[in-house]
Amino acid sequence: MNSLFYPKNLLVVGVSEKPDNLPRIIAENLIRFHYPGELYLIGRCKGNLDEHPILDSFETLPQGIDLAIILTPAATIPDLVEGCGKKGVRHVIVETGGFAETDEQGESLARQVLAIAQKYQMRLVGPNCIGILNPQNGICSVFVKMEPDEIPPGRVSLMAQSGAVTLSLVYMLAANNLGVSKAVSIGNKLDYRETDYLQYFLQDPDTDIILMHLEGISDGRKLLDLARDAQKPVMVYKSNTSQASAHAAHSHTAALTSDDRLVDAAFKQFGLSRIRSLRELALFAKGLSLPPMHGNRLAVFTRSGGHGIIATDLAHDFGFELPECPQELMENAKQYFRADIIDLSNPLDLGTVFNFDSYIPLVRQSIECMQPDGVMVIFVFPQDDYESAAKLVRGFQSLLEEYHLPIALCFSSTQENIDRLEKELRYPIFVEVADAMRALAASRDISQFHKKTRARAALRSTQRCSPVGAAGRARQILASSLGNVLLTHEAFLVCEAYEIPVPPWGLAKDADEAERIALKIGYPLAIKLITPGVIHKSDIGGVMLDIVDEESLNLAIETLKTRLRAQGIDEKADFLLQKMVKDGREVIVGGKKDNTFGPVILFGLGGIYVEVLNDVALRVAPIDETEAMEMTTEIQSSRLLDGVRGEAPSDREALVDTLVRISELLTDLPEITELDINPLIVCKQGVQVVDARIARLS
Amino acid sequence: MNSLFYPKNLLVVGVSEKPDNLPRIIAENLIRFHYPGELYLIGRCKGNLDEHPILDSFETLPQGIDLAIILTPAATIPDLVEGCGKKGVRHVIVETGGFAETDEQGESLARQVLAIAQKYQMRLVGPNCIGILNPQNGICSVFVKMEPDEIPPGRVSLMAQSGAVTLSLVYMLAANNLGVSKAVSIGNKLDYRETDYLQYFLQDPDTDIILMHLEGISDGRKLLDLARDAQKPVMVYKSNTSQASAHAAHSHTAALTSDDRLVDAAFKQFGLSRIRSLRELALFAKGLSLPPMHGNRLAVFTRSGGHGIIATDLAHDFGFELPECPQELMENAKQYFRADIIDLSNPLDLGTVFNFDSYIPLVRQSIECMQPDGVMVIFVFPQDDYESAAKLVRGFQSLLEEYHLPIALCFSSTQENIDRLEKELRYPIFVEVADAMRALAASRDISQFHKKTRARAALRSTQRCSPVGAAGRARQILASSLGNVLLTHEAFLVCEAYEIPVPPWGLAKDADEAERIALKIGYPLAIKLITPGVIHKSDIGGVMLDIVDEESLNLAIETLKTRLRAQGIDEKADFLLQKMVKDGREVIVGGKKDNTFGPVILFGLGGIYVEVLNDVALRVAPIDETEAMEMTTEIQSSRLLDGVRGEAPSDREALVDTLVRISELLTDLPEITELDINPLIVCKQGVQVVDARIARLS
Repeated sequence: MNSLFYPKNLLVVGVSEKPDNLPRIIAENLIRFHYPGELYLIGRCKGNLDEHPILDSFETLPQGIDLAIILTPAATIPDLVEGCGKKGVRHVIVETGGFAETDEQGESLARQVLAIAQKYQMRLVGPNCIGILNPQNGICSVFVKMEPDEIPPGRVSLMAQSGAVTLSLVYMLAANNLGVSKAVSIGNKLDYRETDYLQYFLQDPDTDIILMHLEGISDGRKLLDLARDAQKPVMVYKSNTSQASAHAAHSHTAALTSDDRLVDAAFKQFGLSRIRSLRELALFAKGLSLPPMHGNRLAVFTRSGGHGIIATDLAHDFGFELPECPQELMENAKQYFRADIIDLSNPLDLGTVFNFDSYIPLVRQSIECMQPDGVMVIFVFPQDDYESAAKLVRGFQSLLEEYHLPIALCFSSTQENIDRLEKELRYPIFVEVADAMRALAASRDISQFHKKTRARAALRSTQRCSPVGAAGRARQILASSLGNVLLTHEAFLVCEAYEIPVPPWGLAKDADEAERIALKIGYPLAIKLITPGVIHKSDIGGVMLDIVDEESLNLAIETLKTRLRAQGIDEKADFLLQKMVKDGREVIVGGKKDNTFGPVILFGLGGIYVEVLNDVALRVAPIDETEAMEMTTEIQSSRLLDGVRGEAPSDREALVDTLVRISELLTDLPEITELDINPLIVCKQGVQVVDARIARLS
Repeated sequence: MNSLFYPKNLLVVGVSEKPDNLPRIIAENLIRFHYPGELYLIGRCKGNLDEHPILDSFETLPQGIDLAIILTPAATIPDLVEGCGKKGVRHVIVETGGFAETDEQGESLARQVLAIAQKYQMRLVGPNCIGILNPQNGICSVFVKMEPDEIPPGRVSLMAQSGAVTLSLVYMLAANNLGVSKAVSIGNKLDYRETDYLQYFLQDPDTDIILMHLEGISDGRKLLDLARDAQKPVMVYKSNTSQASAHAAHSHTAALTSDDRLVDAAFKQFGLSRIRSLRELALFAKGLSLPPMHGNRLAVFTRSGGHGIIATDLAHDFGFELPECPQELMENAKQYFRADIIDLSNPLDLGTVFNFDSYIPLVRQSIECMQPDGVMVIFVFPQDDYESAAKLVRGFQSLLEEYHLPIALCFSSTQENIDRLEKELRYPIFVEVADAMRALAASRDISQFHKKTRARAALRSTQRCSPVGAAGRARQILASSLGNVLLTHEAFLVCEAYEIPVPPWGLAKDADEAERIALKIGYPLAIKLITPGVIHKSDIGGVMLDIVDEESLNLAIETLKTRLRAQGIDEKADFLLQKMVKDGREVIVGGKKDNTFGPVILFGLGGIYVEVLNDVALRVAPIDETEAMEMTTEIQSSRLLDGVRGEAPSDREALVDTLVRISELLTDLPEITELDINPLIVCKQGVQVVDARIARLS
C-alpha cells in the first residue's frame, strides 16, 4: 500500500480543459500541492493543463503507474479500469458515486469493476470517495479546489467513510493546530477495507495516532484483533448508530448497521477508543501526543482556585487519584508564596505565587516527591503575558523530556495567544480543564488496556476451561438434531458436553417410563413437554413445576397431553423430567453469532433485570476468566450476586467458569446462531442450567 | 445595581506609583478601556498616574461616588470601607482575599466589613474577586493588565465565583466570536449574592443570555424561583460536585457543597440549563442567539451524506423528529440535482447540487411545506469557497428573519473562514453537527419548559390535594411528640391528617388491650414495639409479622417483651397493632429539608431498587400532579408499576396523589427535617402506608 500513499507517478482520468471539470480540479490540486512525481492526464479530448498534456488514450502511457484517480460517470468506470489494468496500474481511486449505495444496477457495476481490478491484481480505493491526502508528498485527490496550507502536515493519520467527514476531520485538527500525516476517504470499500488502511497506518513510521470514521464495519473480528495488538492509539468515530439512520447509511455508502451497544462493548474489550465528536479526536490527539499516562496519580497545579475545584470534580469523575502534597514539598513551596493564606494541597493553588519562574522548580519537586503518573498545569493569563506563558511552556517541555511524563497544559487566554503558543512551541495546549482531563483519561485507559492485555496474553494461550473433545461431542448432537432449534434435552446434552451442570433429568415416552425416571432423580421435579412442533413450551402451558409425588406426576402428564391436543398438535410428545433447583439467583446467559463480530456472549440477572432494566453485559467470545468476572461486576445489579438483605452470596466463581465455557462453546461451534440459558441458577455452590435453547444454521 | 455596572464616577483604593502595584494596574486598565466617568485614585502616598492625581486620603473626594474598588491587605479593609462609607460611596468591590475562605480571623474580619457597609447602606461585591467587566462602559477592574480587544462586547452576561473562571469564560466566548455584556466575579458573596446579580441581569436590556458559574448556592429557593420566571435563558455551570472537592471549595470561596444529584433534579425542575464545560456555554450562547426552537421537528440539509448520518444519529439521541420530505418538495427539488442518484429524505443530501444558489429556495420551500420547528444546514467547503459560504449565510439570515425559526449553520472549513464569517456576518456558525444539535436541543428544552410552566401556573394556584386544616392537625402532633423522632403511631397520625391511607391500626398497652384491638381490625396483623428508646425497631427484632390469631398474638407480645429486656431497655413499651397489607408494589417516599433548596421529596421502588440500583427521582417540594407523575415515570424501574409477568398494574394515580400530599406536608411543615414512608404499598387500588418515620427540628 506504500505506493498508494507515496506513488512515484500518478494518472488522473477524465480531465478536460473546462474550468469546472472535476478531474481537472484534482489535477490542479496535485500541481498546487507540488506533487513531486510524474503526473499524467487522460481525457476524452486532447488538450493541455498547465504544462501537462491531456492524452486521449491509455496507449502512450508508460507501464506500471503507481496510482490512477478516476472521476467519470459510473457507466464508464469498467472500461477505464480495464484500461488502467492493461497498463499495469497498481492502485486506482474511483471517486465516482452511483455504485452499491444506489441500486442493484450500481451493485452489479461495482462487482464488474472489482472483477476487472482483481484480474489485473490492481487494488481499489472507493468508489464514492475523495481519495487520499498526504501533504508531505503533495497528494490531494479532492475534487474541490484546495490550498496546501489548509492541510498542515502532522502525525495523525485518518480514514473516513465519507469524503466530507474526511475534510471536516482535517479542518478540526488544523483548528487545534494539529496536522495530518495521511488521510483516506474509504467510500464504499469495494476492495480495500478499513482494516487494510489500518494495517498500513499501524506500520507507517510517519503515523503516531490513528483515527477511523466508520459508518459500517466490514470485518469486525479483524478490526478488533488489529486494535488489541496495536502499538499506536486507535480511535474510532462510529456513526450510523440509530435505527433511523440505518436507511440513510444504506443510501450513502451501503454501510451495515450493527447493534450499537455491542459495538461499544467490543471496542472497549479490544482497546479501541470510541470518540463521539470530531472535537474529541483533536483533544485525544493532543493528549496522545504527550508521553503516555501509565497510572491514576495526577498532580494538579493551578493559578486559580476556581479551576482547581473544577479539576478536582473532573479528576473524581474520570477516576484519577489526587495524591496528597508531601510535607517536604509544602515546606519548600511556601518560600514562593507571596501571601500565606492558602493551604497546600493537590490541586496546589499557586494563586499567590506571582513569580512564574518558580512554577518549574515547584512542579519538578512535586514530580520527585509525589511520583505522579501525570501532571496538569492550569494557567489563566491575559494577552499581554504571552512571553511569561511561552517561558512556562518551554520549561514544561524540558521537564517532560526529563521525566517522560504527560504534562497537560490547560491555558486560558485569547485564542491568538493559544494558537501562537501551539504553533511556535509545538506543545499541545488545552483551553479548558475538562478537555485536558478527558484527554489524559484516554491516554491512561489506553496504557492500562495494553498492560492488562499483555498480562493476559501470557495466560490465555495455555488456558481452556471446557474439557477436551467437548466440541466434537456437541457437534454430533447439533448434527443429529432434526430442527434448526434443538429440543430442550438436546440443548442440555450440548451443555453437558462442556461440563456445564444440568440438574438430573430424563426423557420419558409415557407415564410408566416417567415414573421410573422420577424414582431415579427424585422429587420435587419439573416436567416439560418435548415436541418439535412447539418451540416455546410455556406458551401452551407445556411446563409444570413442583411435582412432589407419583400421583401428581401422572396427573401432570395427562394435563400436558390434553393441552397438546387442545393446540391441535397431533404429534407424539416426550416428557422431560427434571429435578427442581431450589434457592439461588436466576441469571441469563445468552449468545449469538453477530454479523459483524462473530460469536458474542451476553450476561444479566434474570427476569426484570434484563426485561425491564436492560441491565446486561456483552462481550465478544471467547472470553477469559478476568473478562467473565468483569461481566458479572459491570452490570448495575451486580451487588445482588453478593447477597442482599440476608441472602447467601451466589457462587460467582462457578458463574465465571460457566461464562467462559459458554464462550468457548460459541467459539468452537460457529454453526450456533443463538443460545439462551434462561434461567441459569447460581446457587450458594455451583450453578444449574434450568432451561436452555440453542438454534443452529439450517 | 445599575450604578455598579454604569458608575458615573469611580474610585480605586490602594494605588501607588510602583509598576507592580495591583490597584495601579486596575486603574491603568480603566484608563486603557476608556472608562468615560470621573476616576479618583487613593493610596498611602501622594503621586500621579497618567493625568490622575493619587490622593492620600478620602477627605478631598466628592460625596456620593458610585463605585470604589479596593485591593489592599485584608487587615486594612475595615478602615478603608469605613472611609468609603463616610463619603457616601454606593458600591464597594473588595478584591482582596483572606476572609471567610481562610480561617476564623478572616471570618470575623468579613463580619466587621459587612457591618460597616450596612451601617452606611453601601453594597459590597466580593471579597476575594476581580470585580466587574462592562466593555460597553469601559469597566475592567481586573488586577492584571488587559487590553480592550480581549473583551469584545456582546449580549451574554455572566457571573463566576472565581475571578480566573470569569476570565476563562470571557476568553471562551471570544474564541467563539461571542462577546460579553457584563461580567462579575462574585467571590465570597459577603453581601451581594448570585441571586442579586441574576435579578439585575434579568432586567438588563443589554443582556440576552445569562451564565452563572457557582461553587456553592447561597439561596437555592430564590435562585430556582427566579429561574422559573425568567424571560431569558439562564445557564449554570455548577462546580464543586465531588466529595473530594468540598475541601478545596471551602478553602477557596467558602462554598458549601450540596448533593449534586439534587442540584441536577432541582435545576431541571425549574428550567435552569446546567452546563458541564466552558465550551458548552459558548455553544449554548450561539444556539440561544438564534430564534427559539419551539418544538421537536427538525429539517436537516447537508452537502455531505456522511454528516447526514451523523445528524440522524444525533437527532435521535437528542429526541428530535425528522419529518418526512413531502412529495411536492421532492419533485420540485429534483430540478436542482445534477445526478439523480440520491433519494430525497430528511436529512436531505445536497451532495449532487452544485449550484449553491439553489440552497436558499430549497430550504424556503421545505420550511413552507414541512413546517419544521428548526432547520440545520451542514456545509463543508474549502478555504477558496469563502464567498459562496458568505452568500449562503446572508441568504439564511434573511430566511431566519422571514420565518423567525432557528437556522443552525454547521459549517466545516478552515478556522480562518469560520472566524471571518462569524465576525463579518454576525451569524453564529457551529463547526460540527454535535455542537449544533446540542445547542438546538438546549433551545428546545428551554422553550418547552416555559410552555409547560405557563400551563401549570394557571392550574397550580387553585389546586391542593391535601385537606383543609391538615397542617394545623399535623403541627399539633409534631408539637406533642416527646422526641425529635416521632413514634411510629405519631407518624401515622401525621399521614392521616393529610388523608394518606394507613391500614387499620391501634396502640395497645398490654396483651388484653391488644386482643380487643385485634378483634376490631382483624387478622392477619403485624405487631411493632413502640418505645422512645428504640428508633430502629427491626434492629432489635421489634417487629413481628403475619400474626393470624389470638394465640400467636399473645406469644408475639411475650417475645417482644423478652427482646426488649434482652436489650437492657427498662422502659414501658406499647404495642402497635396493624392490619397486614397483602399484594402490592413496595415503594419508598422520602423527604428531607435540604440546606440549599428547602423541602425536597424522593421517590423510588422499595428494597433493592433504591438500595442497590440507586434508582430514585428527586424534586423540590411542593410538586403538582404532573411533576409527581414524572417522578413515577423517570425512574428506570418505572415499568414495574405497570405490572410485569402477569402482575396487576399498581394504582399510579393514587401514588401520584400521595406524592403531591407528602410534598404539601413537607412544605406546610418546615420543622420536619426528615421523612421516610418505607414501604408505601401501592395496591391495585389505592396505597397503604406500612411504616413511617418522621424527624423534626429539636
